[in-house]
Amino acid sequence: MTQPVNPPARLLMGPGPIDADPRVLRALSTALVGQYDPWMTATMTETQELYRQVFGTRNDATVLVDGTSRAGIEAALVSLLAPGDRVLVPVFGRFGHLLAEIATRAGAEVHTIETEWGQVFPPSVIEDAVRRVRPKVLAVVQGDTSTTMNQPLDELGAICERHGVLLYSDATASIGGNPLETDAWGIDVVSAGLQKCLGGPSGSAPITLSPRAVAVLDGRRSIEAGIREADDVVSDDPIRSNYLDLAMILDYWGPRRLNHHTEAASMLYAANECARILLEEGREAVIERHATAGRAMLAGVEALGLRVFGDVAHKMHNVVAVEIPDDVVGDEVRGAMLEDHGIEIGTSFGPLHGRVWRIGTMGYNARKDTVVRTLAALEHCLRRAGHVVPQGAGVDAALDVHAAADVHAAADVHAAADVHAPGDVHTGSTAPVGAPA
Amino acid sequence: MTQPVNPPARLLMGPGPIDADPRVLRALSTALVGQYDPWMTATMTETQELYRQVFGTRNDATVLVDGTSRAGIEAALVSLLAPGDRVLVPVFGRFGHLLAEIATRAGAEVHTIETEWGQVFPPSVIEDAVRRVRPKVLAVVQGDTSTTMNQPLDELGAICERHGVLLYSDATASIGGNPLETDAWGIDVVSAGLQKCLGGPSGSAPITLSPRAVAVLDGRRSIEAGIREADDVVSDDPIRSNYLDLAMILDYWGPRRLNHHTEAASMLYAANECARILLEEGREAVIERHATAGRAMLAGVEALGLRVFGDVAHKMHNVVAVEIPDDVVGDEVRGAMLEDHGIEIGTSFGPLHGRVWRIGTMGYNARKDTVVRTLAALEHCLRRAGHVVPQGAGVDAALDVHAAADVHAAADVHAAADVHAPGDVHTGSTAPVGAPA
Ligand SMILES: Cc1ncc(COP(=O)(O)O)c(C=O)c1O
Ligand SMILES: Cc1ncc(COP(=O)(O)O)c(C=O)c1O
Repeated sequence: MTQPVNPPARLLMGPGPIDADPRVLRALSTALVGQYDPWMTATMTETQELYRQVFGTRNDATVLVDGTSRAGIEAALVSLLAPGDRVLVPVFGRFGHLLAEIATRAGAEVHTIETEWGQVFPPSVIEDAVRRVRPKVLAVVQGDTSTTMNQPLDELGAICERHGVLLYSDATASIGGNPLETDAWGIDVVSAGLQKCLGGPSGSAPITLSPRAVAVLDGRRSIEAGIREADDVVSDDPIRSNYLDLAMILDYWGPRRLNHHTEAASMLYAANECARILLEEGREAVIERHATAGRAMLAGVEALGLRVFGDVAHKMHNVVAVEIPDDVVGDEVRGAMLEDHGIEIGTSFGPLHGRVWRIGTMGYNARKDTVVRTLAALEHCLRRAGHVVPQGAGVDAALDVHAAADVHAAADVHAAADVHAPGDVHTGSTAPVGAPA
Repeated sequence: MTQPVNPPARLLMGPGPIDADPRVLRALSTALVGQYDPWMTATMTETQELYRQVFGTRNDATVLVDGTSRAGIEAALVSLLAPGDRVLVPVFGRFGHLLAEIATRAGAEVHTIETEWGQVFPPSVIEDAVRRVRPKVLAVVQGDTSTTMNQPLDELGAICERHGVLLYSDATASIGGNPLETDAWGIDVVSAGLQKCLGGPSGSAPITLSPRAVAVLDGRRSIEAGIREADDVVSDDPIRSNYLDLAMILDYWGPRRLNHHTEAASMLYAANECARILLEEGREAVIERHATAGRAMLAGVEALGLRVFGDVAHKMHNVVAVEIPDDVVGDEVRGAMLEDHGIEIGTSFGPLHGRVWRIGTMGYNARKDTVVRTLAALEHCLRRAGHVVPQGAGVDAALDVHAAADVHAAADVHAAADVHAPGDVHTGSTAPVGAPA
């Protein structure tokens, strides 16, 4: 017989998954309860409320899809898009291609615009395409992990509003580490995953839908034969998936609690704890922590003399793409990082495969000590591979960024102390002193 | 802020989910590792081998689908059936309807035959329908949890072979608790879930595909744009789902390890441990344990004067449908079981809703003490509800069944000792002494 799973010690500093927060690992081992147990339905309801806060929304329709992030993407697209419906996908990396691919399989008429990998789209370019294509849905990745770019979304809601288009965004890689304001930015549907800045395991996809998006689903609702009641609607063109039919998933999470799948309780517990951890620290403080760790990692790799790929002003806080120097073999350095230092960093896809390393600072791992450990190891591996690097410069630069951030945060708290009474909720981008580094 | 999840103490004796084995809960909290870490890919490969043994197959294509059992069903049907393909579904309960529904949404031409709830189909009736419909796929539930019936599958492979039909079966509720011989019975595709007799959480769907089934997928393979290489095939009629495209899922688990989703590592760990627990005890011993606990529960409810629904000769070992006596309100008794005794039992769907309770004895909960505790509580709740029940008769009857099984097992071991050398592997239906009761 095989032995129980017993993984080697690793520090996961790639583009995700990253080390889950130990609190999330503990939540995963919580005892199961039946899916209609009052405690269970209350826990589902509570988790919905937590994710409303994570997404920055008041959308009633905020639930988990029981699958990985791409299940969330497919649930959104297959549920919103009937065969023949037009969708516009601005592609700026691998995950834009994924959205287009999923929409194609859903039978939609897919239009794409593309920009060079390493860039994002100016809103005006997207608006021009919207005007030309007149899609039902504009589907755009927020942070495309393949290039590290973070597409600005804050003006897209207004554009979609003007043209009567639904706006969907995949925030899998960006949520938690970068600003995302579902309601304030007018995004109709956002889907995500736990395994990046939320510090959880892959396998649950939080999703939120505006009333406008729910209205589209309502028109496509069809309750399955095994549990249908006499007065229930039956569509003759139902959503093409049963498992990922968001109308049914919402009926399961909603007051009717219509049987669909059996909620994956362990993953629900994990999702619940991920959100609690984020909201306890505070949404803005968590973003600030990612910003600091990301700046530190960026400063560190630059101080090691490495070049950073893409439009740095538009990269996500939580991941950086580092160009692999010509005099080393990328996968050998990556291998040494893993084998000699126990640290995982990533490569990328398509045109960037073998050209960049992607180094993440996400969720539980967006910390000073993880940044420092990674930079020290990278310096060592580069030197061993024969690439000349300045001794200690990467770690120094990262420590400087963290020190400056600490001073800044302390100053903010002093300033805040003058105007806020104790116990006031902090908003804005100030991290309270004592928040995880 | 909300509190950490903290469920009430429950004993889950419904139709599933049931209490996860504590070993599985512990496995869930194992640290994450990157998806291409050599340890991770080795663990995936090991898990495939474990599930080959659980399914009774040598199929190379044995993997997990990252979703609940119905994700496994949909993956099988949407991947095998192109739009317009004919599928035959014998319906003998709610989950037969589900198969038909999922196939309809996949665009297949769906033909059903139905039998009364509480019955199964004689193979000859299925063969007649196969002859008439000439489907590409025969899709049949093994154990339909809604009625507790266990459709005999052992002759269906030969029927399908004769008519050149692919055979798919949903073994979610039956696997582990009842015989299932994927290869010996000639079943092409079987999908399952962890949350019944395998003693795990919902959210991972083990699936196995014969080479014949894989050949069908090969004809539909289409690698997505974001990761496609120059010489990769692109189908102009790809499988309608990306997330549940088994051709891509097999490429991810196979030697090419083509990126698809991020494996849900925590659920993989759980699935791995579920299989290890089953195989350590031995497949036949586990089935025998379910048979004994199921007989004990059946004898117990009958001794309490309750009637059992359906064709008892064909029920699954692991669940019994008990007719609700006329003089009590089913949901009140169920509520008292939960609130006063901490025990969950189920009701059913459609025509059986409010007419039967479903009591499960599955996985970790297929034990003597759980059966006894449930029967004692049921006696009490029935009496409190005003229904006359013989005092202690249910528990007595269950204990008698367990005692007889122990004697039988001991005799078997004695007999076996005469013919087997120590250390021989037990096959057949004998439970070794000392196996969990
Ligand atoms: C026979 C059968 N098939 C499929 C399912 C669906 O499984 P899930 O709820 O895990 O999606 C169930 C669930 O009870 C079942 O009993
Ligand atoms: C931006 C983005 N979208 C979607 C996905 C797909 O997520 P999953 O692998 O969880 O299905 C990823 C995974 O890395 C991602 O980074």
